[in-house]
Amino acid sequence: MIAWLNGTLTASPRLDAADRGFTLGDGVFETIRAAGGRPCRLAAHLARLRCGAELLGLPLPDDAALEAALAELLAAAGLADAALRLTVSRGPAPRGLLPPADSHPTVLVTAGPLPPPAPPARLVVATVTRRNEHSPLARIKSLNALDNILARREAAERGADEAVLLNTAGRVAETTIATLFARIDGILVTPPVAEGALPGVARAAVLAGMAVAERPLSLAELRRAEEIVLTNSLGLRRVADLDGVALAGGERLEAALRQVLDAPTA
Amino acid sequence: MIAWLNGTLTASPRLDAADRGFTLGDGVFETIRAAGGRPCRLAAHLARLRCGAELLGLPLPDDAALEAALAELLAAAGLADAALRLTVSRGPAPRGLLPPADSHPTVLVTAGPLPPPAPPARLVVATVTRRNEHSPLARIKSLNALDNILARREAAERGADEAVLLNTAGRVAETTIATLFARIDGILVTPPVAEGALPGVARAAVLAGMAVAERPLSLAELRRAEEIVLTNSLGLRRVADLDGVALAGGERLEAALRQVLDAPTA
Repeated sequence: MIAWLNGTLTASPRLDAADRGFTLGDGVFETIRAAGGRPCRLAAHLARLRCGAELLGLPLPDDAALEAALAELLAAAGLADAALRLTVSRGPAPRGLLPPADSHPTVLVTAGPLPPPAPPARLVVATVTRRNEHSPLARIKSLNALDNILARREAAERGADEAVLLNTAGRVAETTIATLFARIDGILVTPPVAEGALPGVARAAVLAGMAVAERPLSLAELRRAEEIVLTNSLGLRRVADLDGVALAGGERLEAALRQVLDAPTA
Repeated sequence: MIAWLNGTLTASPRLDAADRGFTLGDGVFETIRAAGGRPCRLAAHLARLRCGAELLGLPLPDDAALEAALAELLAAAGLADAALRLTVSRGPAPRGLLPPADSHPTVLVTAGPLPPPAPPARLVVATVTRRNEHSPLARIKSLNALDNILARREAAERGADEAVLLNTAGRVAETTIATLFARIDGILVTPPVAEGALPGVARAAVLAGMAVAERPLSLAELRRAEEIVLTNSLGLRRVADLDGVALAGGERLEAALRQVLDAPTA
């Protein structure tokens, strides 16, 4: 599959092994849906990427350059609908945690097919790890994905598709790849960013488009939810059961969220 | 600088950009001191690497193969005293958090000169982030180093050399690259692994060689320590001041720790 790496289209992108993205996970990324040959909600994705880069002190190309890279790759790959990934790492550097003053970031864009529609998710609550709401990393999309990988592996080992991550206080944060929306006593609820929820692009679109209570969510409350639906930039998926206990519905909430997310955007 | 990558010595090691070490920080590493052409405390380093790999479900070459790789690189680089780095990542994979069933890990060994002796450290307490003692990642040396990078950047911005990381409960865990030993009321103290301290190889050697109280350590206690010394596999360093407040000593504790760490090992 063709990729765009630091300005060049290439069928076999190769990186310097001293890249801090590899040695230290020092970088940020975005997963972006493309539809009809165009990235969806691009401004929101680039704004979030820029927030992450600012936290890390990572210099980024300007938005126009990043937008051109995405467009160039989509055209070269001949894809209209795709899952794009835009990754920016600190680039190669000698040993040591402190980034060099003159870093040369690595910018990589890859694209693949959109994941096929998935059946309702079997969800478990991860026991192996907790999301650290005390770290600003919880609020950016960084290359440090191991807590999420551990939880996703636990889900697979328990015969499930996806895992809920609790924060260090034991309240609900999100799932390994998605924002969690739950209907509880008829009210639609999602955990706030301060609780360890990633400020998702689809999440923001939902919050802007319908009535949602952004508030701390206990696990006990989640367990008695009438409906749970997961959203991320690639799509949405309703939850069939949580730790083996079936949820009644989901179709109604899924339809409502889909309507908001499928609405035309600027 | 020459490197050993997946069985081959190369002057310019290059990686597939789909390597999960790069895309997700999915891997583990060890920093190992070499002296007289031989890696120090190799068995302890390989045991810790194996613990980390087991947590991640990452297949590792056997110890003999890893030892041979380190020896081959040291010989090729013509280095007697060096800082070795052994990195194992999940290897290339398609998009998605769940590791592929048939992963082909990337094994990379690099070497560089030992860091020069450093003056006593100016230490600050990181405010930007907290170490997540609720995650098993706190107990392994993974490629997810961003919390440490954030704290190390904060130290530099505040004119210091190194930062103390607190855990989510606000107690002392370690510094960004070292174990912290403090003498308080005459007793030598270091935080336990359950508090978020990395189970360091030098730390284990100190605990085996002298009387140390392994117990939770509050920041208030640390602030009234008589001496603080930092250790890691590359060496040790005493602390000159903490958040701008000078510490009286350090030489005595540094000498005692050095004696234990310099003792011949099996």
